[in-house]
Amino acid sequence: MTQKIGFVGLGAMGLPMAANLIAARFHLTVYNRTVSKAEPLVAKGAHRAARAGDVATPGGIVVSMLADDAALTSLVTGPDALAEHLAPDGIHISMSTVSPATTRELAAYHASHGSVMVAAPVFGRPNAAQAKQLRICVSGSAEAKAKVKPILEAMGQDVFDFGDNVGAANVVKLAGNFMIAAALEAMGEAVAMMRKSGVDASAAIDMLAKTLFAAPVYQGYGPAIAHGRFTPAGFRLPLGLKDINLVIQTAAEASAPMPTASLLHDRFVSAIAKGRADMDWSAIALGAADDAGLKESR
Amino acid sequence: MTQKIGFVGLGAMGLPMAANLIAARFHLTVYNRTVSKAEPLVAKGAHRAARAGDVATPGGIVVSMLADDAALTSLVTGPDALAEHLAPDGIHISMSTVSPATTRELAAYHASHGSVMVAAPVFGRPNAAQAKQLRICVSGSAEAKAKVKPILEAMGQDVFDFGDNVGAANVVKLAGNFMIAAALEAMGEAVAMMRKSGVDASAAIDMLAKTLFAAPVYQGYGPAIAHGRFTPAGFRLPLGLKDINLVIQTAAEASAPMPTASLLHDRFVSAIAKGRADMDWSAIALGAADDAGLKESR
Amino acid sequence: MTQKIGFVGLGAMGLPMAANLIAARFHLTVYNRTVSKAEPLVAKGAHRAARAGDVATPGGIVVSMLADDAALTSLVTGPDALAEHLAPDGIHISMSTVSPATTRELAAYHASHGSVMVAAPVFGRPNAAQAKQLRICVSGSAEAKAKVKPILEAMGQDVFDFGDNVGAANVVKLAGNFMIAAALEAMGEAVAMMRKSGVDASAAIDMLAKTLFAAPVYQGYGPAIAHGRFTPAGFRLPLGLKDINLVIQTAAEASAPMPTASLLHDRFVSAIAKGRADMDWSAIALGAADDAGLKESR
Amino acid sequence: MTQKIGFVGLGAMGLPMAANLIAARFHLTVYNRTVSKAEPLVAKGAHRAARAGDVATPGGIVVSMLADDAALTSLVTGPDALAEHLAPDGIHISMSTVSPATTRELAAYHASHGSVMVAAPVFGRPNAAQAKQLRICVSGSAEAKAKVKPILEAMGQDVFDFGDNVGAANVVKLAGNFMIAAALEAMGEAVAMMRKSGVDASAAIDMLAKTLFAAPVYQGYGPAIAHGRFTPAGFRLPLGLKDINLVIQTAAEASAPMPTASLLHDRFVSAIAKGRADMDWSAIALGAADDAGLKESR
Repeated sequence: MTQKIGFVGLGAMGLPMAANLIAARFHLTVYNRTVSKAEPLVAKGAHRAARAGDVATPGGIVVSMLADDAALTSLVTGPDALAEHLAPDGIHISMSTVSPATTRELAAYHASHGSVMVAAPVFGRPNAAQAKQLRICVSGSAEAKAKVKPILEAMGQDVFDFGDNVGAANVVKLAGNFMIAAALEAMGEAVAMMRKSGVDASAAIDMLAKTLFAAPVYQGYGPAIAHGRFTPAGFRLPLGLKDINLVIQTAAEASAPMPTASLLHDRFVSAIAKGRADMDWSAIALGAADDAGLKESR
Repeated sequence: MTQKIGFVGLGAMGLPMAANLIAARFHLTVYNRTVSKAEPLVAKGAHRAARAGDVATPGGIVVSMLADDAALTSLVTGPDALAEHLAPDGIHISMSTVSPATTRELAAYHASHGSVMVAAPVFGRPNAAQAKQLRICVSGSAEAKAKVKPILEAMGQDVFDFGDNVGAANVVKLAGNFMIAAALEAMGEAVAMMRKSGVDASAAIDMLAKTLFAAPVYQGYGPAIAHGRFTPAGFRLPLGLKDINLVIQTAAEASAPMPTASLLHDRFVSAIAKGRADMDWSAIALGAADDAGLKESR
Repeated sequence: MTQKIGFVGLGAMGLPMAANLIAARFHLTVYNRTVSKAEPLVAKGAHRAARAGDVATPGGIVVSMLADDAALTSLVTGPDALAEHLAPDGIHISMSTVSPATTRELAAYHASHGSVMVAAPVFGRPNAAQAKQLRICVSGSAEAKAKVKPILEAMGQDVFDFGDNVGAANVVKLAGNFMIAAALEAMGEAVAMMRKSGVDASAAIDMLAKTLFAAPVYQGYGPAIAHGRFTPAGFRLPLGLKDINLVIQTAAEASAPMPTASLLHDRFVSAIAKGRADMDWSAIALGAADDAGLKESR
Repeated sequence: MTQKIGFVGLGAMGLPMAANLIAARFHLTVYNRTVSKAEPLVAKGAHRAARAGDVATPGGIVVSMLADDAALTSLVTGPDALAEHLAPDGIHISMSTVSPATTRELAAYHASHGSVMVAAPVFGRPNAAQAKQLRICVSGSAEAKAKVKPILEAMGQDVFDFGDNVGAANVVKLAGNFMIAAALEAMGEAVAMMRKSGVDASAAIDMLAKTLFAAPVYQGYGPAIAHGRFTPAGFRLPLGLKDINLVIQTAAEASAPMPTASLLHDRFVSAIAKGRADMDWSAIALGAADDAGLKESR
C-alpha cells in the first residue's frame, strides 16, 4: 500500500524534494501557483491539484515548501484552508524558512481547526535537495513527528529533532543561516585586509578551508569570495536579507540583541543599494572590499 | 652530521616545538628567560645558553617563539643582538604571532646586519604543537625558506608558503585568528538567541558542527560556548585582544576597515572589564549572553 | 465664526495639544478610547464623540495623535472610516510618529475616498505641547497645508514645511529622533570612558552642553546620563525602540543602511532584556556602562 | 613688570594663541621647527629661540601646542630637555590634543626632574583661537593651575578645571572630539536616509540645527554634510583618525568599550582608503552615502 501525500510549492527546492518522495514510492498530489512547474512530476506519476487546498485529504499529510511567511500563512488560513482540509488529524509538514512566530501561530491555527503542524526546515541548496543530502530540523508533536519521519528521511540525509516546541526548528534554521552569513562577512573582511596588504588571499582562504575551517561553508563560499565570483547566484542576495530580517526579528522578540546580525543587515541593504540584487548572497563580502577602496572587478 | 639550531622562547608553544626538533635529531641550544623551563629539553640533550644571543652562531639557524612584538624586537635589536650574531648569512625563523609591520622592520634590520629573517607563524594549540600537528605559514626569501623547510616540517603537519614578502605569513596568521574570533562571536550570538527562544542551543550547535560547520573551530569551541565552559583557558582572553589589536592595526595600515574586528575588540575589552581575563578567549561569547540579560552560570 | 475640528487621541501629547486648540477658540469634538481622558476638555467646552468616526464631518478637519501605525491605520481604514466620513474634501492632519510608508498608503486611501491627509508630526515632549512650544513638520498638498496652517500654529511655536510628498515630514521626524538617540548613545559611551578613567563625567558633560553642544538635546539628557537618573520616564524606552525600528525600516526601504541605527536597535533590545522597559529611553546609555563593567547604581 | 613665557609650536593653532599672549602683554620667546612661522610674532616683539629647550628658563613657564604625542614626548624628554630646563619649579602648560597616558607619563617625568606639567587642551578651531574664543580644559596641581590661569585666560573665553589628575583634561578633550565625530556620523546617516527617501535633507538639517540641535557642532557641520562640501578642510580627516585612535586607546586602557568610536574608526579608515585624506574630517559622513549607493557629487 502506497501512502498518499500532498505537496505545495514546486520551486527550486520543492521540485527535487517532491521528486525524491516519488522516487521513494510515495503517491503525490502536487500544487504550484505556476502550473507548468508540476509537469516533470506529473510525468513521473504525480497528480496535479487545481487548487492548493485540494492536495489535502482528511487525516492526510501535506508538505509545503514556500517562499515566505506570507505565502505560508495564506496557504493555511486563506481560501485554500489547508488547516481545515486536513482535519481531522491530518499533518502539515512545513519546510519553508519562515519565522518561529509565524510557525507557532499557524500551528495554533491548525490545532484549533483539528489538524497538526510540524516544522521541518532544511539546510541545503537545490543540488543537495536533488541528491537527497538535505539536513532537516524538525520540531512539534512527538506523535506527528514519528508519523512523518519516513517522509522526511526520503528527502534528506539526516533528521535532527528539536523537541515539542513547534517553532524550535525554525529558530535553529535561522541560527544556522545567520552563522553562514557571519562567516561570509568574516571572509570578506579577511580577504579585503589581505588584498590591501599584498597577500594572496585566495591561497590563504584555501589553506584555512583545508585546515581550521575545513567545512562546507568555508570550502563552498571561500573561493568565490577570494576570487570575487558572485554570479550565477546559488541563493539570491535579497533572500539573504529576508532571512537576516527574520533572525533580527526573532531575536528581538526574545530580547536578544545580535550585533553581527545588525552588521549583516546593513551589508545586505548596502549591496542592494549598489545594484547587487541579482548576485549570490555571498556578495555581501564586497562590502568590506568597497570600504577598503578596492574595485569590484579584479 | 646533525644540524645545530638555536631556539629562544620555551613557553607553552615553544617547549613542545623544541622537543619535536630534538626528536627529529636536531642539535638544540636553547634559551628562555625563566631558566627552569629549559630543563626538560636539557634532559633530552639540549644545550642551555646563558643569554639569548648565545643560541646563535655565524651562518646558523635560530627559531624564536615569543610572546609579542616587543619581545621579538628586543631579541633582534636589543643587547642580545640576534641579527648580528647570525651574520654572515644565518637565518632567524620567527614563529611568534606578531604584526607584519614588525616582521618587515626586523627583516630589514637583519638584512642590514648580514642575516636573514623568515616569518613562520603557526596555527595550533600546545597539544597540536606536541603532536606535531601545527600548520605553519611561511614567507620570506625563497633560498632561506628552502634551507629551513626540514626544520619546519619537524614541527608541523603542513607548511604553507605565502611568497617572498616576509610579512605575508603574519597577515595570513592574523586573518585566521580573526576568522576564529568572528566564529566565536557568531556562535555566541546564535546561542543567546536560541537560549532566549527556549531552544536547546547545545543540540543545535552540535548539529551545525556536524554538518555545515564540520570543522575544528566549530567542533572545538561550539560545545564550550553552548555549555558556558570557559575555564581552564586554552588561550587566555587577553591574548585574543592582543591579536585582534594586531588585526585592526594591520588592516588600518593597509586602509582596510574591518567592522567585525572592531566588534570583537569591543567584546574583548568588555570581557576584561567584567573580570574574565583568566577565561579562554571563547568567553567573548558571553557578551551576547549579557546583552540578552542571561546570567553567566546556567 | 468658530471653526469646528475633530481630535482623536488624547494621550500625554494629544491632550495638551487639544487644549491649546480650545484656547485658540477652535470648536473641538474629541474622541479617546479611554473615555475619561476627554473630561478635562469637555470641562473646557469640547464635545465628546461616541466613536472616533463621529469626530469627522464632510469637508471638515480632524487631527489625530495616536500611538502607532496600527492605531492610525485602524482609524482611517477600519470601522471608524475616517477617510469616508471626511469626504468630500475634508482634511485629516496626522500628527503621530508613524512610518512614511504608512502615511503614504493612508494618504492614498484618503484620496481614493474623497478626502485628504496631511502629515504633521511634532518634536517636543508633553510639557512642550502644553506650552505651545512644539516644532511641527508638515508635508502634503499645498492647498491642504494652507488651510490647516492656523490650526498647526495654535499647537506649536514653528511649522516647517517639507513639501508635497506626504511622507516627507515623517521621514524628517524619524531622522530627528534617530539623531537624538545617537546623541544619547554617544554621551553614554563618553560618560563610561570618563568614569572608568577617573574623570568627573558630570562636570565634563556640563561643560560640553554649555559650549560645543549647547542645545536642548544635550542640556536635557546630558545630566541625566552623567548622573544615571532614568526615572521617571519622559519617553518610555520601548517607545524609543518603536521609533528606531521605524527608522531602520524606512531606511531599508530606501536602501540606506544606518549602522548607528543598528547599534541603537541593539541597545534598546538589550535594555529591555535587562528589565529597563520602564525607564526613560535615555537609559540606553547604560549599555556602555554595563559593557565597561560599571554598576548601575552610583 | 611683564611676565616672560616660552611658546613651542606655531602651527595653525599655536600661532594665533601666541599672538594673543603678546597682545595681553606677555613677553614671549618662541620656537617652531619651521623657523619662518615665527616671523609674524617676532614682528610683534617676540624673541625667537634657536632650539626648543631655549624657550625655557629655570622656574619659568612654557606653553606647548604640538602635533601629537611623539612631538610632545620629544620636547620633554629628548635633547631639548624641557623638563630639566624648567627646573627648579618651572611649569609646562601642555595644550596639545594628546593621550592622557602620555600626559601622565610626561608629568611624572617633569616631577622627577624638578618641574611641573599642567594639561590644558583646547576646544576650538584656528579662527576661534584668533578670536580668543577657545574653551580650555585644565588639570594638574592646584598651585600650578593658579599660577598659569592668567595665561590661559589670555588665550580663551573660558577655563574649565577638571581637578588634580593631570590626564583628566585630556580625557575630556578626547570625549568632546568623540562626541563631535559621533554627531558627524549621525548626520551623515540621517542625510543619506533622507536623500534616498526623496526628502530635502538640507532643509531638514537646517530645521534640526535651529531647534533641538541648536549648537555650534550641528550648525557648523550640518550644512556641509547636507550639501556635501568637505573642502577646504578645517580639520583634516587623518587628524580625526588620530584623535579617534587616542579615544579607543584611552578607553581600552580603562576597559571601556565604545562601539560608536569603533564605527568612527572604520569610517575614517575607509575615507582614507577612498582618497579623502585631504577633505575635512566631516567627510566621514560620505561613508553612509556610499553605503546607500549615492554618488559623491550632487
